[in-house]
Amino acid sequence: MSLFDASGCPFPRDDETGRVVLAHGEGGRATRRLLEEHIFPRLNPAGLPAWEDAAVLPALAGAPVLSTDSFVVSPLFFPGGDIGSLAVYGTVNDLLMRGARPLWLSLSMILEEGLPLSTLDAVVDRIAFAVRRCDVKIIAGDTKVVPRGAADGMFLTTTGLGELRTPSPPGPSTLQIGDAILVSGPIGRHGIAVLSAREQLRFDPPPRSDCGHLSEAIEALYAAGIQPRALRDATRGGVAAVLHEWAQDSGRTLLVDESQVPIGAEVRGVAELLGLDPLSIANEGTFLAAVAPKQAEQALAALRSVELHRRAAIIGVVRETGVTPVVVRRFSGQEQPLLEPNGAPLPRIC
Amino acid sequence: MSLFDASGCPFPRDDETGRVVLAHGEGGRATRRLLEEHIFPRLNPAGLPAWEDAAVLPALAGAPVLSTDSFVVSPLFFPGGDIGSLAVYGTVNDLLMRGARPLWLSLSMILEEGLPLSTLDAVVDRIAFAVRRCDVKIIAGDTKVVPRGAADGMFLTTTGLGELRTPSPPGPSTLQIGDAILVSGPIGRHGIAVLSAREQLRFDPPPRSDCGHLSEAIEALYAAGIQPRALRDATRGGVAAVLHEWAQDSGRTLLVDESQVPIGAEVRGVAELLGLDPLSIANEGTFLAAVAPKQAEQALAALRSVELHRRAAIIGVVRETGVTPVVVRRFSGQEQPLLEPNGAPLPRIC
Repeated sequence: MSLFDASGCPFPRDDETGRVVLAHGEGGRATRRLLEEHIFPRLNPAGLPAWEDAAVLPALAGAPVLSTDSFVVSPLFFPGGDIGSLAVYGTVNDLLMRGARPLWLSLSMILEEGLPLSTLDAVVDRIAFAVRRCDVKIIAGDTKVVPRGAADGMFLTTTGLGELRTPSPPGPSTLQIGDAILVSGPIGRHGIAVLSAREQLRFDPPPRSDCGHLSEAIEALYAAGIQPRALRDATRGGVAAVLHEWAQDSGRTLLVDESQVPIGAEVRGVAELLGLDPLSIANEGTFLAAVAPKQAEQALAALRSVELHRRAAIIGVVRETGVTPVVVRRFSGQEQPLLEPNGAPLPRIC
Repeated sequence: MSLFDASGCPFPRDDETGRVVLAHGEGGRATRRLLEEHIFPRLNPAGLPAWEDAAVLPALAGAPVLSTDSFVVSPLFFPGGDIGSLAVYGTVNDLLMRGARPLWLSLSMILEEGLPLSTLDAVVDRIAFAVRRCDVKIIAGDTKVVPRGAADGMFLTTTGLGELRTPSPPGPSTLQIGDAILVSGPIGRHGIAVLSAREQLRFDPPPRSDCGHLSEAIEALYAAGIQPRALRDATRGGVAAVLHEWAQDSGRTLLVDESQVPIGAEVRGVAELLGLDPLSIANEGTFLAAVAPKQAEQALAALRSVELHRRAAIIGVVRETGVTPVVVRRFSGQEQPLLEPNGAPLPRIC
């Protein structure tokens, strides 16, 4: 039994098939060619290796902040985004939310045998665009290939390393009664866009994801002298998941006023059609900020000064601890418990 | 159309099925329960959260070193190892090889719907054991669930952050003519163990992987005053892939003497049976070191002082640049080019 044919090459070469082959993941010549021909030139136009097995970095000015996320979104491309930019923005945003200046990224790719190399190229181009926009660099990486059927196209994992901007990072344990809760823009756009693309729901125009980075919003807040108590991008589980996390970490009750939450007409329409609550739908470039009451209006103005966030709004307040962790004031004026999201309305949303 | 049933719970609960369900990946209550019941207590026996979305770390003493790898090994458990310890040791070893002291890890898990929770528990137990052995901490993490058929059981991605031990890290660009090349132990054990387990080849005793961390070996080298020119664990592509990488980065020709390479009888037997060259078979706890000629014997003694590495050997030398990047001296005494590994003899080996 030999696993090789006579040429020593048991699998089709990529340049014959135009697709990812198992040999691309084996750490030998084919892996090197995949990196040198398809990945490094896109990530590093000078043609040098874009990443090392382990990268030595310059010393940091502030305390290190580390964040990681895997991305399994389906489909790989959707209106307003794609798995590549999601993987960059998602991890950059996690660092920003923790009070860090994002600096470095690692990128690990799990590719399915048979993935068209043109698809890989397109995703890597989007990654390259996103890292330039966020002013971060990919400095370490890895590529694995799994046999056809063992993964669905492509999964990405990014880890971000940044440095803390201020000695005391924002965090929900510092929430105070009376703090205002702001949202940076209309909610639910990412979840509805991915769901519509995956299920081929034909809306016209197709709903677009808010997939993007939050650097400008955060810069605007700090430039205005705001000291946010807590920041959190409202990804999986949406605004409701963040409010529940904050309620748990702070021991306070949070109130959200439905009439103040910005929601686009298309998201509202699709959510109603599908029986989904926009408060539980995923976002990818929209975050919640909690600020002291006297900084609320100033924080709102700072956010709205950024074109992407001109629909930012004050949507809630931190209350004394009540019987339920999160309360929603419905349009009717009635207050109800807001349940922690507990279904899987939107698997593979990010 | 509603994606929920009347209870708001569209998928079976994990405690009904004993398996991973899609809701475990949705960022709401089920995700929190998975973390609080299955993951955090194993990684952090005090019961506190084992990781954060983004973790703020103490300042580093040396320059930061970052490394990442995804692990897709099949089967998840094999003689001598498992995907969990592989994911910890693999990334810790990458940091060690770059001259860093490993400190922190992030862990991202992609789980397939239907994975038995008992399997997840067993893997997380192995991760917990491995991080204790390496004296590192997992401080950031993520969990995604993909529908049945979209991934094969479980994929893990770890990213390691460490600090540089010395101002000038080892690297193959510093290789000098005459440098000795050492291997830390018998080669090919991981690849043969995984292949035997996957293909259910019934060898008795079953070949065991060398899956393990290299902290003790590296400590022994530094304690003996060795300044390694280059260090590299011989994972995918085996010893041959490392030699080719070093030859390319240094511009030198490397010679490896087949008669000096330690190979266990069981690896030699299985490799011959399968038509594989042990020099190209993956290892997971075995590395190459290049050292100055006058430090060669001392380095060998230091490695052999560690129980795990008592079969370390000097296997090669750095030569002037010749016509082929890597030359192997066969048992016959004849010298031949050693080709860069270029097949996929062992997909999903790590």
